[in-house]
Amino acid sequence: MAPRSLKGLNAIITGGASGLGAVIAKRLASEGVNVCLNGLTHDEPAAQKLSSELSSTYSIKTAYVLEDASTEAGCKNIIDTTIEKLGSVQIVIANAGWTKFAAWNDLEAFSEQEWINSFRINTLSPFWLFKAVAPHWKSSYEATGSVGCLISTNSLAGLTSTGSSMPYSVTKAGQLRVIEGIAYNNGPWARANAVCPGLIITEWSLRYGRERIDKMVEASPLKKAVDLDDCADMFVQLCRNESITGKHITMDCGLAMVS
Amino acid sequence: MAPRSLKGLNAIITGGASGLGAVIAKRLASEGVNVCLNGLTHDEPAAQKLSSELSSTYSIKTAYVLEDASTEAGCKNIIDTTIEKLGSVQIVIANAGWTKFAAWNDLEAFSEQEWINSFRINTLSPFWLFKAVAPHWKSSYEATGSVGCLISTNSLAGLTSTGSSMPYSVTKAGQLRVIEGIAYNNGPWARANAVCPGLIITEWSLRYGRERIDKMVEASPLKKAVDLDDCADMFVQLCRNESITGKHITMDCGLAMVS
Amino acid sequence: MAPRSLKGLNAIITGGASGLGAVIAKRLASEGVNVCLNGLTHDEPAAQKLSSELSSTYSIKTAYVLEDASTEAGCKNIIDTTIEKLGSVQIVIANAGWTKFAAWNDLEAFSEQEWINSFRINTLSPFWLFKAVAPHWKSSYEATGSVGCLISTNSLAGLTSTGSSMPYSVTKAGQLRVIEGIAYNNGPWARANAVCPGLIITEWSLRYGRERIDKMVEASPLKKAVDLDDCADMFVQLCRNESITGKHITMDCGLAMVS
Amino acid sequence: MAPRSLKGLNAIITGGASGLGAVIAKRLASEGVNVCLNGLTHDEPAAQKLSSELSSTYSIKTAYVLEDASTEAGCKNIIDTTIEKLGSVQIVIANAGWTKFAAWNDLEAFSEQEWINSFRINTLSPFWLFKAVAPHWKSSYEATGSVGCLISTNSLAGLTSTGSSMPYSVTKAGQLRVIEGIAYNNGPWARANAVCPGLIITEWSLRYGRERIDKMVEASPLKKAVDLDDCADMFVQLCRNESITGKHITMDCGLAMVS
Repeated sequence: MAPRSLKGLNAIITGGASGLGAVIAKRLASEGVNVCLNGLTHDEPAAQKLSSELSSTYSIKTAYVLEDASTEAGCKNIIDTTIEKLGSVQIVIANAGWTKFAAWNDLEAFSEQEWINSFRINTLSPFWLFKAVAPHWKSSYEATGSVGCLISTNSLAGLTSTGSSMPYSVTKAGQLRVIEGIAYNNGPWARANAVCPGLIITEWSLRYGRERIDKMVEASPLKKAVDLDDCADMFVQLCRNESITGKHITMDCGLAMVS
Repeated sequence: MAPRSLKGLNAIITGGASGLGAVIAKRLASEGVNVCLNGLTHDEPAAQKLSSELSSTYSIKTAYVLEDASTEAGCKNIIDTTIEKLGSVQIVIANAGWTKFAAWNDLEAFSEQEWINSFRINTLSPFWLFKAVAPHWKSSYEATGSVGCLISTNSLAGLTSTGSSMPYSVTKAGQLRVIEGIAYNNGPWARANAVCPGLIITEWSLRYGRERIDKMVEASPLKKAVDLDDCADMFVQLCRNESITGKHITMDCGLAMVS
Repeated sequence: MAPRSLKGLNAIITGGASGLGAVIAKRLASEGVNVCLNGLTHDEPAAQKLSSELSSTYSIKTAYVLEDASTEAGCKNIIDTTIEKLGSVQIVIANAGWTKFAAWNDLEAFSEQEWINSFRINTLSPFWLFKAVAPHWKSSYEATGSVGCLISTNSLAGLTSTGSSMPYSVTKAGQLRVIEGIAYNNGPWARANAVCPGLIITEWSLRYGRERIDKMVEASPLKKAVDLDDCADMFVQLCRNESITGKHITMDCGLAMVS
Repeated sequence: MAPRSLKGLNAIITGGASGLGAVIAKRLASEGVNVCLNGLTHDEPAAQKLSSELSSTYSIKTAYVLEDASTEAGCKNIIDTTIEKLGSVQIVIANAGWTKFAAWNDLEAFSEQEWINSFRINTLSPFWLFKAVAPHWKSSYEATGSVGCLISTNSLAGLTSTGSSMPYSVTKAGQLRVIEGIAYNNGPWARANAVCPGLIITEWSLRYGRERIDKMVEASPLKKAVDLDDCADMFVQLCRNESITGKHITMDCGLAMVS
């Protein structure tokens, strides 16, 4: 009755050097998964540190790919480099995202270019990652029957008009459709799912300010923020649960009445 | 007990020269609404013809603005020109959209630029139109208490992974969040809603091919395509129903089990 | 381009003597629809008065059937009596419902019997009405191609965990599935849809108390309660729109971020 | 980074002697959870056998309570007996349900009494179980900060008009609202969630017949039925994930485009 083991699989985590990405990396490493982290230039020190820590603590292989996950070419490079460094990749965590904090009624907050940048990273990045990995997953499935696993980090903001900004919410909503579209049209050799956390306390979300965070905690039935380890544990669940595809799982301590 | 009259109001309809847009234009005109049509160069002959027909049949004012609705500047020009020609605008129908027909599992079907173009016209156009009209609606509300009405043409594809292509579905899903975001953050001086038709028979949808259309008709409980006049009638309903905002209405002859 | 006329059709409205039901009755009568009202003993004086008023104002036929709409036998009698008195029935408005006002965390508020009563009237009544009318609608469709129209009065409470009580919300959620199930399995001779109003001001909702009502008004983007005439106008729209089935339409002045 | 341990907790599983309930029981036992099974008279032999097997294999305490889970009194007895036998209960799996296989357009399939019986077991049973356990969970939370965990077995049929019968779908839809209502109004001392499996192969679902099962398998992107162990693993995930409440998780191999 032991759950399916992930030991020896290889994973790439975009935006994996810090925040939720780093916690997912740790949790996957603790299951014996080799992990390749991805980030931008300013993420490199944190990525190096995390890499060493994970390889020494969990005796796994680690790698790092410095690359912008918001373009098709970048995503292709991320997948190719991961395969080059780890030999193959079975798990793709499309975790990189971007927002600015802005009032929802501030129609000036995002320029046309910022809207499009939001779309590139929040909506399209999972698609380009999948497009790049698809031929590899198809071959693996034909050769061994193994099924590739794509998971995107979405948000409560992808489900309802809440969160840091309207462009973030709009482009995360689009991402959910990307995940569904991939799942419903590329079986049985690939699975795709999303995790929609409510309030998690990371460097990013701290920009909400203490007062707003306290209000959200107070408003949630469980009177707390989403635990980062709980959140990472759900990613692991989705990696090993081979019966789920095309779905999103919302984890928000009850903050919002949506699934 | 007569329903609220729309007589004398002014409307702009993007993509209003043909297809569903033209049917909405006729239906609004028949209610006494002055209409400004918008389209691209190749739409001009149809727009001229429709314009003359509407002004002579219904004794309303009509206008036409040749402009690309997929950019912020274009949308501003559309609103400004409408106001210049009709004096003011109370109804904005964000109807222009774009897709290509492509298999959902064809990961090559849309280039990066085509994805972004889809986002521009299908997701952002209603936002830019609203941004341009917002100051006018705020003033009108303060002066007279009148509430501006934005309605976007969405699609069953905005609600589920179906329709002409994955980018269309993804960017129409984003549009629904734009409409919600506008509605929930810009009351009481504006209302925003969307209509999600299933299969309608227009030049556009005929590209599905007869066989696929027949299958969809057969699959729908009502055994028919959505009537264009029924669809336009729902736009009129949303124009005059001052209690509804932030919602989408799905009309699909029962084709899909979603609301 | 005039919308489809309802003149000369016959409608039964359960719970039609007062509140929203009475406003729907008036609005249908104003369209030339003959209406049969239904209610319990204590509704009779109001029903008589409304009946006379409608028949004299709109020159339509009216009738009244005193009956409990919460049982299969009662619903059969309601349909049979309507047909007996008006000759036929094309429109069934399943509007009767029941709730008590109770805190959602009060686990004692409803007895087992009250839960079941809620299920009977809020979930099952539309089903029994439909079961009783189904053979008539099938014959009519075969004879004339006419499509029967069932509309239920649902609620924002049917879509989310809000409203007067948990049993009301739970049983209204069940009702939405009844409507869908009818629509998706009984075409093309019947259509079935639901209307989900947010806060409407009737004798019933006044039991919320002024303070709670004011809060809801303040929380809604449009800063008001749902207008009863707007609500009734949507019922008329659903009667004449022959392309919509299996859907619910939410009208709440933006109070809740759900569709 | 090890996930939270469930070792030493006590669980009651209604309908736990066979089918999915028995697999959940095994999986919880394998995590060191003591389990009380519940069933009707005809379930007793299977329950006895499973009980012995679990206690000897996993060195846990087991118990059995013969009782009808469809009434308030029965649910109270189930909770009281579990506490009497195991000392306390932290996990309640509301798994018992009932349906008949019937065509959705067969309006005669369920009698009024069968509709109500469906409501009793599918919608109300989780509520009565919660009502009975609530005082215990409140005290525990006050004394130790521990949070009670309710999980119901729902179904794809709870989310869309599919499955064995319309009453099953309607009453499972109601159950989702019960779970939400409990979660949003009884924090932080309780969590409540639901699991919605698609096609699982149990004695129950075999009544679909091989042909229909094969069709569902073929229609699902993953080309298989939901694995019972995967399904049970999600129940374990929900037991230990202390950040999720008020949600349902759908696991259907992609069979339906709903979450």
